[in-house]
Amino acid sequence: MNYRKLGKILGKIMILEAILMSAPLLVSFIYSEALINKIAFIVPIAVLAIGGTLLQMLKPARNQLYQKEGFALTAMVWVVMTLFGAVPFVINGDIPNYVDSCFEIMSGFTTTGASIINDITEMSRSTLFWRSFSHWIGGMGVLVFVLIFIPESNDGSSMHLLRAESPGPQVGKIVSKMKVTTRILYLIYLGLTILEVVVLMMDKPIPGYENDQFFFSLLATFGCAGTGGFGFIPNSMELFNPFSQYVMAVFLILYGCNFSLYYLLLIGKVKEVLRSEEFRTYFIIVAAAIGIVFLSLVGQFESFPQNYTTEEAFRHSLFQVASLLTTAGFTTTDYNVWPMLAKTTLVLAMFSGAMAGSTAGGVKTSRIIMAMKGAYINVRKLINPRYVPKTKFEGKTLEQKTINDVFGFITLYSFIFLAVLFLLSFDPVNGQTVSIVSDAGEYEVKHGFFSNFSAVLACISNIGPGFEGIGPYASYEGFSAFSKIILALTMMLGRLEILPVLLLFNRRTWSKF
Amino acid sequence: MNYRKLGKILGKIMILEAILMSAPLLVSFIYSEALINKIAFIVPIAVLAIGGTLLQMLKPARNQLYQKEGFALTAMVWVVMTLFGAVPFVINGDIPNYVDSCFEIMSGFTTTGASIINDITEMSRSTLFWRSFSHWIGGMGVLVFVLIFIPESNDGSSMHLLRAESPGPQVGKIVSKMKVTTRILYLIYLGLTILEVVVLMMDKPIPGYENDQFFFSLLATFGCAGTGGFGFIPNSMELFNPFSQYVMAVFLILYGCNFSLYYLLLIGKVKEVLRSEEFRTYFIIVAAAIGIVFLSLVGQFESFPQNYTTEEAFRHSLFQVASLLTTAGFTTTDYNVWPMLAKTTLVLAMFSGAMAGSTAGGVKTSRIIMAMKGAYINVRKLINPRYVPKTKFEGKTLEQKTINDVFGFITLYSFIFLAVLFLLSFDPVNGQTVSIVSDAGEYEVKHGFFSNFSAVLACISNIGPGFEGIGPYASYEGFSAFSKIILALTMMLGRLEILPVLLLFNRRTWSKF
Repeated sequence: MNYRKLGKILGKIMILEAILMSAPLLVSFIYSEALINKIAFIVPIAVLAIGGTLLQMLKPARNQLYQKEGFALTAMVWVVMTLFGAVPFVINGDIPNYVDSCFEIMSGFTTTGASIINDITEMSRSTLFWRSFSHWIGGMGVLVFVLIFIPESNDGSSMHLLRAESPGPQVGKIVSKMKVTTRILYLIYLGLTILEVVVLMMDKPIPGYENDQFFFSLLATFGCAGTGGFGFIPNSMELFNPFSQYVMAVFLILYGCNFSLYYLLLIGKVKEVLRSEEFRTYFIIVAAAIGIVFLSLVGQFESFPQNYTTEEAFRHSLFQVASLLTTAGFTTTDYNVWPMLAKTTLVLAMFSGAMAGSTAGGVKTSRIIMAMKGAYINVRKLINPRYVPKTKFEGKTLEQKTINDVFGFITLYSFIFLAVLFLLSFDPVNGQTVSIVSDAGEYEVKHGFFSNFSAVLACISNIGPGFEGIGPYASYEGFSAFSKIILALTMMLGRLEILPVLLLFNRRTWSKF
Repeated sequence: MNYRKLGKILGKIMILEAILMSAPLLVSFIYSEALINKIAFIVPIAVLAIGGTLLQMLKPARNQLYQKEGFALTAMVWVVMTLFGAVPFVINGDIPNYVDSCFEIMSGFTTTGASIINDITEMSRSTLFWRSFSHWIGGMGVLVFVLIFIPESNDGSSMHLLRAESPGPQVGKIVSKMKVTTRILYLIYLGLTILEVVVLMMDKPIPGYENDQFFFSLLATFGCAGTGGFGFIPNSMELFNPFSQYVMAVFLILYGCNFSLYYLLLIGKVKEVLRSEEFRTYFIIVAAAIGIVFLSLVGQFESFPQNYTTEEAFRHSLFQVASLLTTAGFTTTDYNVWPMLAKTTLVLAMFSGAMAGSTAGGVKTSRIIMAMKGAYINVRKLINPRYVPKTKFEGKTLEQKTINDVFGFITLYSFIFLAVLFLLSFDPVNGQTVSIVSDAGEYEVKHGFFSNFSAVLACISNIGPGFEGIGPYASYEGFSAFSKIILALTMMLGRLEILPVLLLFNRRTWSKF
């Protein structure tokens, strides 16, 4: 393990985080917040800047990073960013408990959006900004930033960083040089972000929040772009006007696309985009899920406490599918009261996630396609042992090795899922009653199996809200500190696609070579 | 597809089923049941015997079976046995609905034990016997019988049959000749069965059922041996004396062992048994699960409606873990009221299942071990891409191909799990209230997500009872006919380890070659 080199890079990450943290500090000044809110950011900024600069003085014997170091570094970056990123909430008192703060900002950086905050109205502007901004930072991967701002390594090491970081089994290899790729991806990300803010600004302001339209548009866009989903006014996106809700749903579906496709669009290769199997499958899944959820509500609008109109039912179906499938986790209505068919469809959407190479979490559309093809090959081999598959994916031969990697990933995903479910079952919150106040009225739910199940799913797929006790109008506050740490690690496992995080727990990672 | 040969073998299966069905017919005579109860068995016996004999007249052009034909045949055997095995219940009126009857007997043959019967006291003796006997038949696999009673093929075809049939990734290859192996396995099975009946007969009779001790001991043993779990008096095994409950728990754990190990014991190779990794892991899992469940109950015995003593709490922990982990599904208490930790542990036990080569369902201990080792290899490869694994399992090198098969199986298992969960969400039973009367008193539960989740789990792992709406004191009666058919297929998928059943749905299976 090249500790000095790792230290040096982590130092740069710290400096980067200090720079990023000056944005919420600026917000604090703009809104003339109390001194403590400014100190809350100034202190960690100073520590990060000084610590990061000191780490720059390390003189690594070797300048390259081996693969294992790249992966370990990627995982460590999330830990370091979280440990420092949580500090402001403790200092300004918005989240006095440090474990809670770490949960919250890990949820931010991993673009999960699971929150332990019960009353969002008590949060300062700078806190709200930093939470949502962390989604945007996490969205394209902190390391993509690093590659742009810190042109450190022209050798393979940056490639290794990106492999662990990239949300999906493949990062588009369209542009040969890694740095150019990331820069292009970043520009597309920035472009979509600006576009969404502009479109959201075209809406009427939310009644009661007339002066906050730009601030809210920005925060909502951060949450969409990173497919994060932190709310910043009560009830997530319920109070937003229908126009904004439609806009966000559409942008979420767009953010769920593989960003390589946008590059193809930019260079005019529209046909290639339309020919992409993953792209087609993704849109079929999205459309089917919206259709099923909507149809499950039809004919019983009056039986819901919300008493939906047809337009409302359609809008909420669209929004919730878009939000949960792209693993953002914004909500516009209390889907806890929806029928089982709608809820189960949403659960499946949460497992699925969106396309590889997007900001979404989850298993990813491409893995689902490859696993299906792999299963089909296995059936064919059973029929005829001498069967030689000529299966293709995206026009290229689908190698058995790739299929095995996908099978391995899903197996590990399932095992970790069950392990976390087990660990959550120790929590004293189980069996307790949770009071919900939502657009469906006031009611009580028990924190039961579905709560835990959906908590694991919402964290490993980087979504945020689940069902019942941690549903759209509840929070993760009730969990014990132990469960919160476990769930924060689960978010990290999900975001980094499991293996790079597991690598941290193998002693060979820390050996000299 | 060698249809004539398949028809001929299916004909033999039909004759075999006719012979097996004469056992419940005999029971009907012994207990002097009404004429209709005898006709209920005589009619299908006659049809099976005549139909089977007619099919014997087929003259196959080719006497061998290809692999795909072996697998397809195995799957078809379960369908044929179910379609005929369900007839008696309809004729004698115990289960008037044919779909319900098919569900019940498929549940029997697959050793699931999920029941749609609400009031077991209304069933005739012959019905009770046939249900439990179907577990015993299914337990070692109908096809193992076939190999013994119908010494048809000395070539590779019987091997293929056994491969699809054997509960687990490997059937012990200790004895080289297949027929000898199956005969030995069968003798062990019979020996354990007789032993359990004898031991159960040593208990005091159940109060109120003084004259039925032999009948009940036999039926209980059928359920244990096949790890099936159909009850035959109200409340499954709750009314049995503690001694019998302990005996059954121990036998269940024994039936969960790989039967090859008993052969090793018989020929004196005790050390090899103790050295078996799967054996050790299985016992660690069993002990850990019992310990966790018991400890989760300690210190709150009074807070349960059952007001357990320490002995009771221990006995129920032992029994429920043994019963659900070995996928039998007998119950002695209402574990629905247990804390989340106990319930989640039971859920994990239900996923796990017992050892390969046993009568249990589920993922199987050996697959869990191999998947873990496979995951470890993947982490090591990430640390060092040139890593060459020298991983062993049971003393032999663990091939990457084997690991990939396990990964593929678990992936398919997960996908099918979610697909069935989705299909169940259409059922009108969702959201309905189910009244439970158990040793925990009278209460109501809603048929919610946990009900469906545990129904899928209980059927794919061939267990039977789940939680909440389909918990230990409830039945599958509330499900629609559609759901029942889906769940019956799920049992078959689980019992035949998925792929052979999927093969039936590929048109190439039915092509000429």
